[in-house]
Amino acid sequence: MNQPIAAQLLRREFPPALLDQLVALLGAQRVSTAAAVREHHGHDESHFPDALPDAVVFPETTEEVAAVVRACAAHRFPVIPYGTGTSLEGHILAIQGGVTIDLSRMDRVLAVHADDLDAVVQAGVTRKALNAHIKDTGLFFPIDPGADASIGGMSATRASGTAAVRYGTMKENVLALTVVLADGRIIRTGRRTKKSSAGYDLTRLFVGSEGTLGVITEITVRLYPQPEAISAAVCCFPNMVAAASTVIQAIQMGVPVARCDFLDPLCVKAINEHSKTGLQEKPTVFFEFHGSEAGVREQAETVQAIAAEHGAEAFQWATRPEERSKLWQARHDAYFACLQLQPGCRIISTDVCVPISRLAECLAATEEDIRRSGRLVPVLGHIGDGNFHLCIIVDPNNAHDIEIAEQMNHRLVERAIAMEGTCTGEHGIGCGKMAFMDAEHGDSLEVMRMVKRSLDPHNIMNPGKVVAV
Amino acid sequence: MNQPIAAQLLRREFPPALLDQLVALLGAQRVSTAAAVREHHGHDESHFPDALPDAVVFPETTEEVAAVVRACAAHRFPVIPYGTGTSLEGHILAIQGGVTIDLSRMDRVLAVHADDLDAVVQAGVTRKALNAHIKDTGLFFPIDPGADASIGGMSATRASGTAAVRYGTMKENVLALTVVLADGRIIRTGRRTKKSSAGYDLTRLFVGSEGTLGVITEITVRLYPQPEAISAAVCCFPNMVAAASTVIQAIQMGVPVARCDFLDPLCVKAINEHSKTGLQEKPTVFFEFHGSEAGVREQAETVQAIAAEHGAEAFQWATRPEERSKLWQARHDAYFACLQLQPGCRIISTDVCVPISRLAECLAATEEDIRRSGRLVPVLGHIGDGNFHLCIIVDPNNAHDIEIAEQMNHRLVERAIAMEGTCTGEHGIGCGKMAFMDAEHGDSLEVMRMVKRSLDPHNIMNPGKVVAV
Repeated sequence: MNQPIAAQLLRREFPPALLDQLVALLGAQRVSTAAAVREHHGHDESHFPDALPDAVVFPETTEEVAAVVRACAAHRFPVIPYGTGTSLEGHILAIQGGVTIDLSRMDRVLAVHADDLDAVVQAGVTRKALNAHIKDTGLFFPIDPGADASIGGMSATRASGTAAVRYGTMKENVLALTVVLADGRIIRTGRRTKKSSAGYDLTRLFVGSEGTLGVITEITVRLYPQPEAISAAVCCFPNMVAAASTVIQAIQMGVPVARCDFLDPLCVKAINEHSKTGLQEKPTVFFEFHGSEAGVREQAETVQAIAAEHGAEAFQWATRPEERSKLWQARHDAYFACLQLQPGCRIISTDVCVPISRLAECLAATEEDIRRSGRLVPVLGHIGDGNFHLCIIVDPNNAHDIEIAEQMNHRLVERAIAMEGTCTGEHGIGCGKMAFMDAEHGDSLEVMRMVKRSLDPHNIMNPGKVVAV
Repeated sequence: MNQPIAAQLLRREFPPALLDQLVALLGAQRVSTAAAVREHHGHDESHFPDALPDAVVFPETTEEVAAVVRACAAHRFPVIPYGTGTSLEGHILAIQGGVTIDLSRMDRVLAVHADDLDAVVQAGVTRKALNAHIKDTGLFFPIDPGADASIGGMSATRASGTAAVRYGTMKENVLALTVVLADGRIIRTGRRTKKSSAGYDLTRLFVGSEGTLGVITEITVRLYPQPEAISAAVCCFPNMVAAASTVIQAIQMGVPVARCDFLDPLCVKAINEHSKTGLQEKPTVFFEFHGSEAGVREQAETVQAIAAEHGAEAFQWATRPEERSKLWQARHDAYFACLQLQPGCRIISTDVCVPISRLAECLAATEEDIRRSGRLVPVLGHIGDGNFHLCIIVDPNNAHDIEIAEQMNHRLVERAIAMEGTCTGEHGIGCGKMAFMDAEHGDSLEVMRMVKRSLDPHNIMNPGKVVAV
């Protein structure tokens, strides 16, 4: 039986006293049991069936979050943190019922320390909102998972995306956190310093914990100086292996590529139809270079030379900001573009990541698997990190269709793990990938369980996600 | 009473049966209770009094480490992992007695994945040994804490050093670990991929845990392409604030400086005497730039221009590899150079790190404190990270002298924490900085304790370090 559905069996009745307490804490306006609100919070971008919370609350401060968690803890009732609902593995599904904490009202940028290259934000601030807020400082926040996700959600899922090849993931870019623990205690982890050796790295423990160890309410993130020069280019390759080999060689030579995303011909076709981009429907890489004028020129020349050796066509440049924005917006809309390939469909988005030496091999074997399946499966990915996605298009009302797609994902994950890879490069575990945790982690999964039991002994924090206890 | 001394009261008798078991496991040659061996393992580079283990064992494999830990666990007897003994906060002192696991025989580089820019090493491999091993691959391991520490010890203390400003700390550069837990179980954390969102980040939990959660036996570290060009320069400033301001501005502009270390005139004097370097005895910064020929030139020009605005003298270049090596060797020998300022002395090395916007202020207040004390206190630091050290010279046989020095360190830590800094940028907590954990972490210290209790319920893993339980 599918994990989310199995877990629904554990759903408990919503204690009426808890609802009264929540209303007493936040007022009736910020506590909702309306069907429409619960439905909105009962699904993410995954293909999993909806799982509605019993109530949704809208706190505005860390103290209010703490009060809500304390109330839920007293009833041992589940708590599910919710950012923008753009997760891809059912992270925010209330599979055991519970109270969803919607953090979207915690949308204040609390401090921008331009001199220190950091900012402190509430969890509901989205990455675009942060960048808009700081645009006159000469700084930017580079992590870009595509969706305009909340910084809290991005921290909770250890998100990354197109610019991780240069700037790292949320793991590298979160300096400090404010977290509400399972008993309602508020803690601060980490400092605003660039480094510290003072004890256990609790910041990194909560980054990627997907709400299962606590609710992240405030985040201190690193910012970066806006590069003096940026240029972007599209490059077509004779085949996927040539594209991957070019990127791998550039990385191995130490070229500090800012972004390099691969799209297969079907994905380019979907983008062309959705975003009217007129790109050639060939194996394609979108590149972006950041640096000084001279540095960007040098990087681009190096990569072009490598690409030419692999039979690539000339770079098509997008130097003006609006051309660049259009290009990357089209890339980010790839998910929605792929959805339009088949009316009424959903997408099962896979997310393996392998050591880059195995990337071409992993992509080739996966391409062969897709070919054999005879299905429409666009491929795209952050290949500079060894991370790629299949957009497996499924009819959500056809169990057999979903089953076939899940089998393809299963084979892909097994292939990646056999190549020392991971079942998820950036989407996270949610409830969708729990079945792969044992194969990937072996005995260290039990250590994750020990940590979970220690910090959340009654299993109320986003239960049924990441690790089964 | 001083923490290490207080903890000695907890020392238990060494179970004779345990000694027999250790000998049965490793053979008499690799188990020692000889006074000289115990003494060698009973002190590090700190000023704390020696604290000898009851026995020292020399395993050669992870399985042997696991067997040793299992044997100790059965007797609930302390286990202290030992790398090269270069720690600075009493990390390896056997303050409750116990069995020291010397990992120096685990000195094999297990794999170099040049295409993936990573290597897998046993814990006893030192950073210089790793770099010698890979020198023909065109890659290098950049983390450089000065001492030729073991990679296991560097992981356990979350070390960094001169090149962290560009390449990060061990936190950013460890991909995966093999760890022996407190009950002797062996786990693998992390994967060789550049990123993963698959569950809790156990790798980062063990990095910096100083042997208190388990024994790190194997480490997968990131490697980097050797830069096409490297240049280094020495620059003298009219005062410390001008030096700090130059570095801060360069960092804020995004110049990817590879190293930038500050030395005060007294520190330069000590280095000149020790290393015969003939440097001007002024506030000085050692810079190093990595990149393409053009990139290095551009970085250096930018930094020179900023330095000139702050009244600096012209850069003195050290472009040839042997000049550069001499320069950085002199920097690394600063600790020993300072030791020679006063015969028979020891050094209390402080290690605060503050947000860089507060660095000049923190340095200035500290300089004033030193001036008032009338003591010999060289100042040096990785100022691009906001991290600096005082080498407080003390007579180890003079309790009053040590008391005065500890008070100066105490004031410095309070000053740094008040500026949102940390009590340790890179040396770690050991037993020397436990007293500051509460001030720095507040309620999150209790979460560290929860993690410690969960993973080491009988408190046998390097007890009396990091967190008191």
